[in-house]
Amino acid sequence: MKKRSVRTLLAMALAVFSLRAGAAGLRDGERSYQGTVDRLREAGLAGERGFDLLRRITSVGPRLTGSPQAAAAIELATSLMKELGLSGVHTEPVEVGRWVRGDIAEAAIIASGTRAAIPLSVCALGGSTGTPERGITAPVVDVRSLDELASLGTVLKGKIVFFNRPMDRRLADPFAAYGGAADQRVGGASAAAGHGARAVLVRSLTFREDRNPHTGLMQYDPRAPRIPAAAISTADAEVLSALIKKEKSVSVSLRMNCRDMGRVISANVVGEITGSELPGEIILLGGHLDSWDLGHGAHDDAAGCAAALEALRLIKDLGLRPRRTIRAVLFMDEEFGGTGGRAYAIAPQRKGERHLVAAESDRGGFVPVGLAIGGRDRRILERVSAYENLFRPLGVSFIVPGGGGVDVAPLIKQGAVPAAVITNSQAYFDVHHSALDVLSSVHPRELELQAVILAALAYILAQEGT
Amino acid sequence: MKKRSVRTLLAMALAVFSLRAGAAGLRDGERSYQGTVDRLREAGLAGERGFDLLRRITSVGPRLTGSPQAAAAIELATSLMKELGLSGVHTEPVEVGRWVRGDIAEAAIIASGTRAAIPLSVCALGGSTGTPERGITAPVVDVRSLDELASLGTVLKGKIVFFNRPMDRRLADPFAAYGGAADQRVGGASAAAGHGARAVLVRSLTFREDRNPHTGLMQYDPRAPRIPAAAISTADAEVLSALIKKEKSVSVSLRMNCRDMGRVISANVVGEITGSELPGEIILLGGHLDSWDLGHGAHDDAAGCAAALEALRLIKDLGLRPRRTIRAVLFMDEEFGGTGGRAYAIAPQRKGERHLVAAESDRGGFVPVGLAIGGRDRRILERVSAYENLFRPLGVSFIVPGGGGVDVAPLIKQGAVPAAVITNSQAYFDVHHSALDVLSSVHPRELELQAVILAALAYILAQEGT
Repeated sequence: MKKRSVRTLLAMALAVFSLRAGAAGLRDGERSYQGTVDRLREAGLAGERGFDLLRRITSVGPRLTGSPQAAAAIELATSLMKELGLSGVHTEPVEVGRWVRGDIAEAAIIASGTRAAIPLSVCALGGSTGTPERGITAPVVDVRSLDELASLGTVLKGKIVFFNRPMDRRLADPFAAYGGAADQRVGGASAAAGHGARAVLVRSLTFREDRNPHTGLMQYDPRAPRIPAAAISTADAEVLSALIKKEKSVSVSLRMNCRDMGRVISANVVGEITGSELPGEIILLGGHLDSWDLGHGAHDDAAGCAAALEALRLIKDLGLRPRRTIRAVLFMDEEFGGTGGRAYAIAPQRKGERHLVAAESDRGGFVPVGLAIGGRDRRILERVSAYENLFRPLGVSFIVPGGGGVDVAPLIKQGAVPAAVITNSQAYFDVHHSALDVLSSVHPRELELQAVILAALAYILAQEGT
Repeated sequence: MKKRSVRTLLAMALAVFSLRAGAAGLRDGERSYQGTVDRLREAGLAGERGFDLLRRITSVGPRLTGSPQAAAAIELATSLMKELGLSGVHTEPVEVGRWVRGDIAEAAIIASGTRAAIPLSVCALGGSTGTPERGITAPVVDVRSLDELASLGTVLKGKIVFFNRPMDRRLADPFAAYGGAADQRVGGASAAAGHGARAVLVRSLTFREDRNPHTGLMQYDPRAPRIPAAAISTADAEVLSALIKKEKSVSVSLRMNCRDMGRVISANVVGEITGSELPGEIILLGGHLDSWDLGHGAHDDAAGCAAALEALRLIKDLGLRPRRTIRAVLFMDEEFGGTGGRAYAIAPQRKGERHLVAAESDRGGFVPVGLAIGGRDRRILERVSAYENLFRPLGVSFIVPGGGGVDVAPLIKQGAVPAAVITNSQAYFDVHHSALDVLSSVHPRELELQAVILAALAYILAQEGT
């Protein structure tokens, strides 16, 4: 083998990696924050502190709105904020709906001729009514859209409607694919009930073919009868669909004892670093503390909560004194109606406060790729873009108009500018709302980069402008 | 619960997701390729075809340069290229070094006083000589750098040197952290041998703390004695380091039967879509077929090979007729000396060929985030940048100078412009060169986006310019 010096070999192997060094020089404004952003990055990536916060939140387990675990999460979040030395740590009451999954979610393709029954992996969709105790057994109709459903009309009477349109794999943006299929889950039951159907099975919203059902909110139209709605795993959806093609008439039994438990009082959790000069002007970093109940809500949205808390920890531990208030709000009930976001916006504590920016992290703990800021008001977007060279080494390759989310929507209506760290979402729906959404699906450094970006964003916005 | 229409709820939930719609309009040039890029994306994401190619390559198992499995991979790659309908499928001989790991790689902290022996998880570094059959037992010196080593001098005589500097977690770019620690692995043995050391243990190059040793190339300086070099897992490095602090004098035994087997003939595998107008002008898409032998080389670099093959499949299956030749080259021996890249550049077949662009995919099958193109010559970079709005929806958020790699370096010296898809690398070193680098660590859509980007890049470059 031809010998090469260690130096040559290393240089050769690393040639491809040097691609982003020697980027354009920093602007004056950027230079003034460079040291701070460097220290935030070093403290944020050094010791998996952000991931530890995630671990502590997910260790509560599932945190379904109104559940005892959600209450435990509120207590934990309050202690965590105090432990991090935040100021004004408190909870604000939120009236939420309580729905319980129960302990039965069974479905099977009924035996036919010499073919045995085939069990189906299903779960109740959030908000669904249960079945009668003996279950519902009925022939299944495979439909691909609400339009197709409407065209079938009276055929659906007495049937179980199987909404089986997959997320469109051909779209590069998984959120767009999700958005294009979620109508079946949210509105499918009432649409089918309007035609006399007895229950619905909805194909799980994920690209992966596996046996994990993915839950999520469904809503009843008050004009239609309330019929049970279940998600079916994608692998089981394929089995059922193939069998319908083959046997023409296929019946399924469905049995669930989920039920509504009325209204209960829950809470948002609030803590802050109070601004030294403009305490009433607020940069909000938020996530939602509630989660679905099949997994541990690690990406959705313990990650957003951990990122917000870790961002404040970093700012505090570096001894930074922001001019404006930087506040973490862990919202309740994002998944089940968004009451937490509405309650926060109109709480008596808001009197005299002005929310300049409301950043919500609810796209999972995956690697950050960009920032979305502001809607019509471009001033904050422009302000942040002036520091783009500080964000780029953290993985922020674009800063575009956008941002927002269920929890901060009411604040945005009041004039706050939305913001969000945009993360890689290719694997998001693999775990979303399913049993797979657990701690091990989050990569520590990917989460921690989000926290560093939030810290830098919040601190710069707390200092800059009038 | 306050009732909201399905439409409102969906709109609210998806508000954050619409951030990149309504991007700036396309330029005329972009418009002319939009339909093609859309079809490449749809075909590339529809059915996990790219991932299936990856599966077929990794199913060969580890493909260490010069090994029987590397030979099997060459056969497989040749068949795959023919199956995909590529033209001019052939192999080109490469003389490579053959090194075998053997079946023994054992290390332990020797028992001391009442403390029992502690086994250590190690593996031979690539190219290392073995130990004598009885092994080597010697006191260990924990050093953090080649400079520290030099300062210790005669203390090292007869010792095992433990290079224990971790990759710097505080850096946002894992490749930079890798580059900052790899000198210990590549040159540590000879540096230590120069001071009379008997063997070296090198901390594995990964951020994760686990028991997987990570191998990789080491090189001997002909002026120093050849001593055995092993990687030690990060978890075991922590154990050893803590014990050295506590007990001051700690001895380790090391036994390995890896050995050099001389030179053998291997091959690069070449196939193409021959250009309809300018067949001698080549856009090369490359990856390396050889891999390290602890895992299956899924990210490193079956992913790069699969991405290149899938890119050509997409172009072919869409019936596109590129003006220039688009060629896939699966190089041998990237990991063990880079002889494949050198052999390709000077092979007789290169006569009359001009490589316009040489794109090497060797950063893993993770989600693409950008493109790096060209060094001094900015023309190709500018040509591609004129189509940035077509690449952006595929995840390409930046197009910067850069690119290159071990295999294409000789072509670049001859004037080819380097290019590379830049991928998220936060998790790359979790698996790199270890037993964890297997199929399940690659996400199908993330890999397939890389193939779509390569296909679009290669096709546009095959058509545009003179």
